[in-house]
Amino acid sequence: MAAASNQNVEFVRTGYGKNTVKVLVIRRQGSHHYIIELKADVELTLKSRKDYLTGDNSDIIPTDTIKNTVHALAKLKGVRSIEQFSLDICHHFLTSFNHVLRAKVHMEEAPWRRLEKNGVEHAHAFIYSPEACRFCDVEQNLNGIPVVHSGVKNMKVLKTTKSGFEGFLRDRFTTLQDAKDRCFCTSVYARWRYNTQDVDFDAAWMRVKETIIEKFAGPYHSGEYSPSVQKTLYDTQVLVLDRIAKVDEIEMVMPNQHYFTIDMTKMGLTNKDEVLLALDNPSGNITGTVRRKQQAKL
Amino acid sequence: MAAASNQNVEFVRTGYGKNTVKVLVIRRQGSHHYIIELKADVELTLKSRKDYLTGDNSDIIPTDTIKNTVHALAKLKGVRSIEQFSLDICHHFLTSFNHVLRAKVHMEEAPWRRLEKNGVEHAHAFIYSPEACRFCDVEQNLNGIPVVHSGVKNMKVLKTTKSGFEGFLRDRFTTLQDAKDRCFCTSVYARWRYNTQDVDFDAAWMRVKETIIEKFAGPYHSGEYSPSVQKTLYDTQVLVLDRIAKVDEIEMVMPNQHYFTIDMTKMGLTNKDEVLLALDNPSGNITGTVRRKQQAKL
Amino acid sequence: MAAASNQNVEFVRTGYGKNTVKVLVIRRQGSHHYIIELKADVELTLKSRKDYLTGDNSDIIPTDTIKNTVHALAKLKGVRSIEQFSLDICHHFLTSFNHVLRAKVHMEEAPWRRLEKNGVEHAHAFIYSPEACRFCDVEQNLNGIPVVHSGVKNMKVLKTTKSGFEGFLRDRFTTLQDAKDRCFCTSVYARWRYNTQDVDFDAAWMRVKETIIEKFAGPYHSGEYSPSVQKTLYDTQVLVLDRIAKVDEIEMVMPNQHYFTIDMTKMGLTNKDEVLLALDNPSGNITGTVRRKQQAKL
Amino acid sequence: MAAASNQNVEFVRTGYGKNTVKVLVIRRQGSHHYIIELKADVELTLKSRKDYLTGDNSDIIPTDTIKNTVHALAKLKGVRSIEQFSLDICHHFLTSFNHVLRAKVHMEEAPWRRLEKNGVEHAHAFIYSPEACRFCDVEQNLNGIPVVHSGVKNMKVLKTTKSGFEGFLRDRFTTLQDAKDRCFCTSVYARWRYNTQDVDFDAAWMRVKETIIEKFAGPYHSGEYSPSVQKTLYDTQVLVLDRIAKVDEIEMVMPNQHYFTIDMTKMGLTNKDEVLLALDNPSGNITGTVRRKQQAKL
Repeated sequence: MAAASNQNVEFVRTGYGKNTVKVLVIRRQGSHHYIIELKADVELTLKSRKDYLTGDNSDIIPTDTIKNTVHALAKLKGVRSIEQFSLDICHHFLTSFNHVLRAKVHMEEAPWRRLEKNGVEHAHAFIYSPEACRFCDVEQNLNGIPVVHSGVKNMKVLKTTKSGFEGFLRDRFTTLQDAKDRCFCTSVYARWRYNTQDVDFDAAWMRVKETIIEKFAGPYHSGEYSPSVQKTLYDTQVLVLDRIAKVDEIEMVMPNQHYFTIDMTKMGLTNKDEVLLALDNPSGNITGTVRRKQQAKL
Repeated sequence: MAAASNQNVEFVRTGYGKNTVKVLVIRRQGSHHYIIELKADVELTLKSRKDYLTGDNSDIIPTDTIKNTVHALAKLKGVRSIEQFSLDICHHFLTSFNHVLRAKVHMEEAPWRRLEKNGVEHAHAFIYSPEACRFCDVEQNLNGIPVVHSGVKNMKVLKTTKSGFEGFLRDRFTTLQDAKDRCFCTSVYARWRYNTQDVDFDAAWMRVKETIIEKFAGPYHSGEYSPSVQKTLYDTQVLVLDRIAKVDEIEMVMPNQHYFTIDMTKMGLTNKDEVLLALDNPSGNITGTVRRKQQAKL
Repeated sequence: MAAASNQNVEFVRTGYGKNTVKVLVIRRQGSHHYIIELKADVELTLKSRKDYLTGDNSDIIPTDTIKNTVHALAKLKGVRSIEQFSLDICHHFLTSFNHVLRAKVHMEEAPWRRLEKNGVEHAHAFIYSPEACRFCDVEQNLNGIPVVHSGVKNMKVLKTTKSGFEGFLRDRFTTLQDAKDRCFCTSVYARWRYNTQDVDFDAAWMRVKETIIEKFAGPYHSGEYSPSVQKTLYDTQVLVLDRIAKVDEIEMVMPNQHYFTIDMTKMGLTNKDEVLLALDNPSGNITGTVRRKQQAKL
Repeated sequence: MAAASNQNVEFVRTGYGKNTVKVLVIRRQGSHHYIIELKADVELTLKSRKDYLTGDNSDIIPTDTIKNTVHALAKLKGVRSIEQFSLDICHHFLTSFNHVLRAKVHMEEAPWRRLEKNGVEHAHAFIYSPEACRFCDVEQNLNGIPVVHSGVKNMKVLKTTKSGFEGFLRDRFTTLQDAKDRCFCTSVYARWRYNTQDVDFDAAWMRVKETIIEKFAGPYHSGEYSPSVQKTLYDTQVLVLDRIAKVDEIEMVMPNQHYFTIDMTKMGLTNKDEVLLALDNPSGNITGTVRRKQQAKL
């Protein structure tokens, strides 16, 4: 094998940008204030690689300028949703310069919830309520249309029954017993792709989130039995695609965060699944991605 | 100064125990399930120090046994509240052994919230909702009465107006400008001491939490002006002591998590407090502890 | 757009496994003990999707069994390196079952360093020394040859001079000044692909790590000027491919963790780059992947 | 119990300041550069409480000024050690103002290590090497002498043998077995008080750190048997006080981070303490504080 050198290597991928650019945007309607707080990672890919090859920086839009641009666009355009603002950022870089090949934005929204009491909203006070993290990924190539993904992560849910795991394969290393009724706890990650930019992103996000919770929990009085994480994950995905025509593909990850019934027999006690122990690790990890069939779109 | 040795040193304090003992307790009433999940740090102090001095372990209740005991008591006693369960744990160690001088328990409750829709509660499904962390500290000495503290931490609140900071001292290192109207964000820590064990701990905790939010936010339509973190903190404490007679002392810490208006003049833009930047650090840190005057209790 | 349902959706990807499986392996040679501690994420993809589709678990090797298998293989095979052990795990699942389509292992090694004093090694005592995290990714398809990546992450380095950034593009949002001499701090991430499994993985990892440090720091008395993170990143990659013939491709990410000279003019002081402030965020983020040209391998 | 109000409550404690003030100080001797990076929490207590009581801010030295002061003192005084710099900060606030009752500084040093190869030091390049975190606490009252504590934390050590735990007390909840030879892993926290400010703080810190490691590990060829964490902790403290006359008191916390031998009997394998599992929680937690006897100082 020959020695490498500039002549013997080639680029697979380049990119640079600014990570964790933070903004809080306040919109005032009289004494009623609206806020959206976000953090963004912005990455650009340039046409030339002379910065890497020779240290010629003349094509580089500095990462400091990228940060300033996010701040300036928040002022100039406002932020209706993280998805729309990410679209605005991509559009800016691809139209303001002719040497930007690709722009990518990952954005997360801080989960502020307006204070509310007996149906009355507070005019300007909020509490941080991280039940679920909303994020999006927008990517656009020069002369291309933007691809928008939205997502939810760190949404932890638990049910104390209506979950089991039976009839699995056994080999010499298997020690697990069949479980007909177990505790099921998971921290949901889901990320889906829209087939258009013409979306009410807030409503769509809320609809996906509610569908995930609905499928996990089942009817409020009786619940719904889950024979495996795999089945619940897939059923959720089918239901999301069924309900939201503007979503074409969805990836989900549902770690199985185990709770075990503590064995108290050595202490002379009978623990009927009353006292359980959460296992921090290891965790099972179930994932799957499904998409709308192409013919289904015709 | 003479050389140290066993004869020349003395104990100031000893203690040992188990940290991060986790339990999920499920209580079933027909198909309706109740859960409480907690983690506990338990520390004991023994009469003799022969374990430290000579490696004689015969008085040591192993930390593994301490963990087992927490599990067993959860089964035998149930967990009505983290405060009551901590009291039960202290009582167990002080009454089951005669060589335990002191028992201390720090306990935190996992913020599970039952799923609810249109006023209907789910029978057995929950979502993790960490708006505020509830904890307690219970400490009891041999032949003493237990001292119970409850607390809230990591409750982050923000208001976009009705906060200022003016008229402060200036010296040669001062560059801060007076602020008549600023954003105020803090992550509240509060810890208070009860003067009795005969408390509805759930109701009292909720009352303190609501009082903190109420004093921070002010009336829902108009808010309430805060001239400094110090003043808001103190006013909150007075109100807590005023409302809850069973609380005798309260400590609060309110870091000032700064948001600055981004200066866009160099970019030719005028930012009227619309686009702000959160500063991760440094943060101001304001603290204070107040108590009910002794005569006030007569 | 038609409604989705089982018939209208198709799988893009499935997988499941166990994350954060931990093992400490002790090898004893007389009184001299060797340790390797690791954590592994193992993911399998099965031929059928009947678990997702119908809740039929009969093909599932439970994640609990996957964990047991990692433990058992550590006992049966030993752990020479995380790369070799990951290869063993993939081999096990692909040869023990005929319905496993793909096995993937991500493994990280805990950075234990044997205690040493004046050249004498301690027989059995170690200190945790996280200067750099070593990890690997091994992936193998049914009837395929395994692909082995090794990597280093969280290796933070800083130099106080011999770094600049000048001559960049300016637009209306640019406020950055040219810097001829700045502080350069980064937390290096690098991940490279071997073109064979016949590698001394320990030696190769050490060689890459040393090359990264060497290129960052330059000669010990004089250093080496970096005109941009891009240039230093690329030069490092070329040098790695030059030095290690068994590496065919390398990805690197070098965030620019900024330190700014604190402006003390308002305090009447002149700060000649003596007192700097670390910025936690935002950070610049520079990335690139290069590979050996195909003809270069002939 | 009477209702509380301003008249019915009294202050127990007040304080305010700035947390996580960061500084990197570079000292240049020709081309050889020295760095020290630190973060400080500074807290002041003022004579009056009118800021809390009435919102009168006129005595408040703003936390922003406190931050500026740390930066300015770093420039004006330099930073020889975190202890000396903390002393300088306390001295500044107590002598520049006459209404500061108390100043407290907690400071941590970033563990940068100069690059070195074959005994040659790099002129200006460093690597982040977090084997042990060095911190200090300095506290001074108006007209008082400062009290200096230094400390080490997050120093994780492990030995594979020469540790046991036998002969402990057994009750109905005890399931632990005697262990004659076990793995011992702990993350050491130690904090000690000097009896003078006239200390070579770098040398003293290094001496304590080495003593802790020495007592944990024992002689390099044979090790030293630990019959309990308690005994090892106490022996270490006595040795520190014996070796360093300027230390009068030392607190230590040594959590017992358990490793268990994985039971493989159900898999038909015999695991002779070769493959172990680290338990993240719960952990044992052993603590003790000892001091030099007063007569010992005569």
